[in-house]
Amino acid sequence: MLPLPVLEQAASEITNFRCSGMSVMEMSHRSKVYIDIFNETKNDLKRALKVPDTHDILFMQGGATLQFAAIPMNLIGRTGKADYAVTGVFSGNAKTEAQKYGEIRIACSSKDKNHSYIPKQEDLRLSADASYFYYCANNTIYGTEWKYVPETGSVPLVCDMSSNILSVPVDVSKFGLIYAGVQKNMAPAGMSAVIIDKTLAGSELPITPKLLSYKEMIETDSMLNTPPCYTIYMLGLVLKWLEKQGGVEGMEKIKAAKAKILYDLLDDSAMFTGHAEKSSRSDMNITFRSKSEELDERFAKEAAAAGFENLKGHRSVGGLRASVYNAMPVEGVQKLAEFMRKFEAKNST
Amino acid sequence: MLPLPVLEQAASEITNFRCSGMSVMEMSHRSKVYIDIFNETKNDLKRALKVPDTHDILFMQGGATLQFAAIPMNLIGRTGKADYAVTGVFSGNAKTEAQKYGEIRIACSSKDKNHSYIPKQEDLRLSADASYFYYCANNTIYGTEWKYVPETGSVPLVCDMSSNILSVPVDVSKFGLIYAGVQKNMAPAGMSAVIIDKTLAGSELPITPKLLSYKEMIETDSMLNTPPCYTIYMLGLVLKWLEKQGGVEGMEKIKAAKAKILYDLLDDSAMFTGHAEKSSRSDMNITFRSKSEELDERFAKEAAAAGFENLKGHRSVGGLRASVYNAMPVEGVQKLAEFMRKFEAKNST
Repeated sequence: MLPLPVLEQAASEITNFRCSGMSVMEMSHRSKVYIDIFNETKNDLKRALKVPDTHDILFMQGGATLQFAAIPMNLIGRTGKADYAVTGVFSGNAKTEAQKYGEIRIACSSKDKNHSYIPKQEDLRLSADASYFYYCANNTIYGTEWKYVPETGSVPLVCDMSSNILSVPVDVSKFGLIYAGVQKNMAPAGMSAVIIDKTLAGSELPITPKLLSYKEMIETDSMLNTPPCYTIYMLGLVLKWLEKQGGVEGMEKIKAAKAKILYDLLDDSAMFTGHAEKSSRSDMNITFRSKSEELDERFAKEAAAAGFENLKGHRSVGGLRASVYNAMPVEGVQKLAEFMRKFEAKNST
Repeated sequence: MLPLPVLEQAASEITNFRCSGMSVMEMSHRSKVYIDIFNETKNDLKRALKVPDTHDILFMQGGATLQFAAIPMNLIGRTGKADYAVTGVFSGNAKTEAQKYGEIRIACSSKDKNHSYIPKQEDLRLSADASYFYYCANNTIYGTEWKYVPETGSVPLVCDMSSNILSVPVDVSKFGLIYAGVQKNMAPAGMSAVIIDKTLAGSELPITPKLLSYKEMIETDSMLNTPPCYTIYMLGLVLKWLEKQGGVEGMEKIKAAKAKILYDLLDDSAMFTGHAEKSSRSDMNITFRSKSEELDERFAKEAAAAGFENLKGHRSVGGLRASVYNAMPVEGVQKLAEFMRKFEAKNST
């Protein structure tokens, strides 16, 4: 979902960007007008997330799935080993992909309870010789979210923030690498933002494609080839909008309010129950189910007819899921809660 | 460059696609409305290029540069060897990247004459045990174009058509794989279209990232992860526009007319000389220079002031270059020719 004012501005500039006579979609990525857009976007992201000068921001093609490979290709070379926390589908996929490039150890897994919780710090099995520790901050499919940043000593932290980036302040200096597929909270699909401690670049495996080398991307400022120019421009518009909402700090308050509406409802309801344990609840993806699969199905169908799209849970877990990404207004969540209450009243006997 | 009617249609639909109440930028890639867009685009490309059923069309992220790695990762496993024709910067880069994954032989090189020509069939050094033969159909930077399809017996042909796809009919059945970064003739930057003989998929090296596996992409119909949905939608609009111009056959006539205007001028001019040998001239990129570097510089500057952007040659070759991709109207080329004649008259003594 993208904020409506962002889409409206994009529409107004699509054939002629700021009197350039050109669309951003057709500008040379080496033209001054485009370089200005690129730098402004990068600086706005740096400011929004308070990225320190020790770290660089890269815009890379391929989404999170390609980072599942790029991360070990670039980082595992130092010791040949890495620790992975498996708390859902995407961290599991990242672990499987990483096994192509080195020895992967499972630092923790929440599979025993169908990924309904985030393991505690004291339950993490950490290796001192890991090249990095990998985890996924927010599990889109299961609706859980890490409420703490793992302590891993001198082992660099690598974190997938695809589904909660820009919704919560983060101390970037604690991380070796943060990345996010942009399609949840940042921009249209087709890109990843990567924030990397510059000292970690440069030990890529010899089989790393040039375009996936963080070192090459740092050296060329993400312009080793033509970048996804329009996606970067759209990210820039989203960041300007975010700033008007009070930045990441403002967004955090709004998302907490939105999540509270739905979790309060779940806690009160006799029909709906949440999937995630209370202490691990995600503020971005609220997963729940009703009394039966058949009722879930009916709920999703009636909700779609009433204009609430995409409430079916992911096919791998079933049930129901409300995603309240940054662009979703509070009013949308209030209306959904109202719809849920009415559905419950109508279907209780 | 994108056709103006395409940009105007994109603008009109950007906040609300065909009464869906949603922007294409925010649709789930698994929603019916988006799947329809995806299938229509794929079918339109299949029809435009007369892609036979033996081949599949993939939409992949990362542009041509990532295909430089994906191609050997997927295809070189059969024999461990491949032949590369080096006729410019991008085929040279593709060769260098491929050397990470197998034994690469140089089938021909035009470096001896600063890549001003395309070698002849009888000058190609072909290996019977090559997994594939690789070439770049149109050399953007040097302005040369292959006027024939190499005969390589049973060795599959792999061709980079980034800068001339959809400008000339092609017998797809002759190729093992055709690909194109979309940003020249197809859509905004950030994607490659890959047309692959399905029998070639399935021998990828174990270190191939899942997202770069042609087999995985065929099996998931390019939806292994969220694809660059908006870029695919824009490609769809471009293909509808192309059909109105008479399809690829219509485009071929228009591009021949555009190129003729500029090559006739070069042949007549006492100031400007073409870079490419006549028999190897590209119809998409017309490379030339004036009497001196200083005059080239002045020409590019005055041309930019008159509204003709990007006429400076690529930094690796210098000189001047006019790119007349599909979206450039004949009138634009006529105006440029007029500007060149006036510049010559003004600067001749």
